[in-house]
Amino acid sequence: MQAIRIGLLGLGTVGSGTAEVLQKNAAEISRRLGREVRLAMVSSRDAAKARSVCPDAQYMADPFELVRHPDVDIVVELFGGTQIAKDLVLEAVENGKHVVTANKKLLAEYGNEIFALAGRKNVMVQFEAAVAGGIPIIKALREGMSANRIKSIMGIINGTSNFILSEMREKGSPFAQVLKQAQELGYAEADPTFDIEGHDAGHKITIMSALAFGTPVNFGACYLEGISKLDARDIRYAEELGYRVKLLGITRLSEKGVELRVHPTLLPECRLLANVNGVMNAVRVNADMVGETLYYGAGAGALPTASAVVADIIDISRLLSADSGHRVPYLAFQPGRLQEVHFLSMDEITSSYYLRVQAADKAGVLGSIANILAGEGISIEALIQKGVLDNNQAEIVILTHSTVEQNIRRAIPRIEAEASVSAPVVMIRMESLND
Amino acid sequence: MQAIRIGLLGLGTVGSGTAEVLQKNAAEISRRLGREVRLAMVSSRDAAKARSVCPDAQYMADPFELVRHPDVDIVVELFGGTQIAKDLVLEAVENGKHVVTANKKLLAEYGNEIFALAGRKNVMVQFEAAVAGGIPIIKALREGMSANRIKSIMGIINGTSNFILSEMREKGSPFAQVLKQAQELGYAEADPTFDIEGHDAGHKITIMSALAFGTPVNFGACYLEGISKLDARDIRYAEELGYRVKLLGITRLSEKGVELRVHPTLLPECRLLANVNGVMNAVRVNADMVGETLYYGAGAGALPTASAVVADIIDISRLLSADSGHRVPYLAFQPGRLQEVHFLSMDEITSSYYLRVQAADKAGVLGSIANILAGEGISIEALIQKGVLDNNQAEIVILTHSTVEQNIRRAIPRIEAEASVSAPVVMIRMESLND
Repeated sequence: MQAIRIGLLGLGTVGSGTAEVLQKNAAEISRRLGREVRLAMVSSRDAAKARSVCPDAQYMADPFELVRHPDVDIVVELFGGTQIAKDLVLEAVENGKHVVTANKKLLAEYGNEIFALAGRKNVMVQFEAAVAGGIPIIKALREGMSANRIKSIMGIINGTSNFILSEMREKGSPFAQVLKQAQELGYAEADPTFDIEGHDAGHKITIMSALAFGTPVNFGACYLEGISKLDARDIRYAEELGYRVKLLGITRLSEKGVELRVHPTLLPECRLLANVNGVMNAVRVNADMVGETLYYGAGAGALPTASAVVADIIDISRLLSADSGHRVPYLAFQPGRLQEVHFLSMDEITSSYYLRVQAADKAGVLGSIANILAGEGISIEALIQKGVLDNNQAEIVILTHSTVEQNIRRAIPRIEAEASVSAPVVMIRMESLND
Repeated sequence: MQAIRIGLLGLGTVGSGTAEVLQKNAAEISRRLGREVRLAMVSSRDAAKARSVCPDAQYMADPFELVRHPDVDIVVELFGGTQIAKDLVLEAVENGKHVVTANKKLLAEYGNEIFALAGRKNVMVQFEAAVAGGIPIIKALREGMSANRIKSIMGIINGTSNFILSEMREKGSPFAQVLKQAQELGYAEADPTFDIEGHDAGHKITIMSALAFGTPVNFGACYLEGISKLDARDIRYAEELGYRVKLLGITRLSEKGVELRVHPTLLPECRLLANVNGVMNAVRVNADMVGETLYYGAGAGALPTASAVVADIIDISRLLSADSGHRVPYLAFQPGRLQEVHFLSMDEITSSYYLRVQAADKAGVLGSIANILAGEGISIEALIQKGVLDNNQAEIVILTHSTVEQNIRRAIPRIEAEASVSAPVVMIRMESLND
């Protein structure tokens, strides 16, 4: 089948990321889709960058020429802003192109107009990357929750603000100082208004509100209150009372109507949402049948956002490629392209380990155990005597660094064979969740 | 357009829940899908129950007659088990029916055979409900992550085990005692082997592993180790060292091959996954472009699982209904069925509130503030004096119960008008995350 031909508008952070994902994971994408996705054309202000980032794509100085070009199947709008982006998206739709965009502002402010035209032209407009970056929350709301009446959505959907609030809490620093630090780290723009005053979160919760309750998009109805006036003292007092302060986008359906608002919010510290820190995003959805679900991940950044852009490209491509029978392969990859792999035996896996050894409480025991582990190539992260039992037996807890399990399986019987060791060794695997 | 006709096999917990969701949310589903979903036929051992739960469906004593019936578009298999369920699913596919199933055991053990036949017959087989109940993790893996190479999946995917481990940690109780309690609460079966020895989690991680890495389903390669031998002491020691013990399903792609295993695992307590408690499930996915994402929600129960079953029904129905242009409506609901709603002004919203008042540190101040709040119909959850500032000024922090915001907006200027109050009142909204 012929390749799906992408016309890419914009080579900023997300545009370059999209080109990178399409190139780096071309084989994986083709294994899933059964068809190649080709970056056919690109338009950006910087022609030299276009040639360097997408050497195989045709460069178009005029983006309007790109969106009208017969050799483009899907237009990917990553210019941002609303002036030219709106004209380009409408022109693409007018020309029968399917559109993928990450432009939350465009959709929150002009979504109704764009979707109306797209409906008349019978084209798809996908926007997973517009809300919460790499988290597939649009798909969860439009498809995963489709059997439910959604009751409320609450989201940490601006990474800049969440980073600032996390730092203010951890270090007790004032807002202005943390903002400066965020700017130095590249987490906040030179003009941070859009992020810290809630506009960005407002665009995102406005889009989610429409999806949840089946209303037109209405950014004008969204109350915006940012974090710039927050006093570190209130964050500290809230913490003393068992709460964390987060900038939330909130939308909720009540008998009186729809709430739609962005503001700093105290959350009970025991809740997962209260423990989403740094630049990470999370969205909590409450729905009548499934109850509470939560979606967590990177809300910004070149590759996470591009992951959502490319997922949308694949989504559209699957429908363009679908025969009557199916759209998504049963096992995610094309049946003819499944691979037989080697499944590791437990001897071959790599893990770190918790070991508990019961032994006579006398000199030399710890040393013998440490020697056995060292002899099997196992390095120790911590070795702690946990207390002495009634019968002069000690319990020793060991945390190991990562090692191949066969080393542990050889070490355990050697430890158990020590004269001073009086019970079978307890072994529990550990995961750092760092990979 | 004609209704999509469902043939339902089984009226146990999930089957009855599916009938309930289809009936209760029929209007919402039709607003999303643009087409009615009709429970046309049902087969279960108990004919009387069938008539009471699905009064409008035709009862079929013989399930094989149902899966062959020309008036059924989608067969929903909720019998469970592998003997008759396998024959029924294959017979349904053979007869060109699309299939939705929640049967993880069936797919983990016979998925390759079922998918092969389904591919030849060009029918869809959907199974969102088979893994992590109401969490749309299959959709996230097959579609949301489609631009990524998935590196690892780690999931708390057995609610019974997670409940037992959460209780063992919180109460320090031994395994046997907590299991008994879980059985009394209905969280564990009379014969709990399937849940506590890791079989159920093994079926689920096996399915996710195939989806992640593009391999045939291979339950035989899955290492299973349950929680029945865990000592409460090790849970306590782990906690003292900063770890929680969770039963995880783990699959990871390394240079050597694929790891596929279920066992108790120590996790650093600062991680979200370590803080998933009770019967809740969560799945953490690490992928090359998007990085870490996490999906949390109810992993079992009639309505959460039915939410996933019905989402699959809608997914298939959308494709059966799709014209060339689109499958999922732009704003989740059919364009003609969006509703204009009243968006609440901030005066109208309901919330609880954090207030900080700075006032002279003298008798009567707390009383006046409390009186003002009471006068505006605001009840106080906590009122705490947070310390005295240099200039004999005290800071008072108040947490209110839920109230309409206009009450707060009336109360604040009244508090600020008090002679002893010396600075603007700080107000931050609170959310309990209980709805």
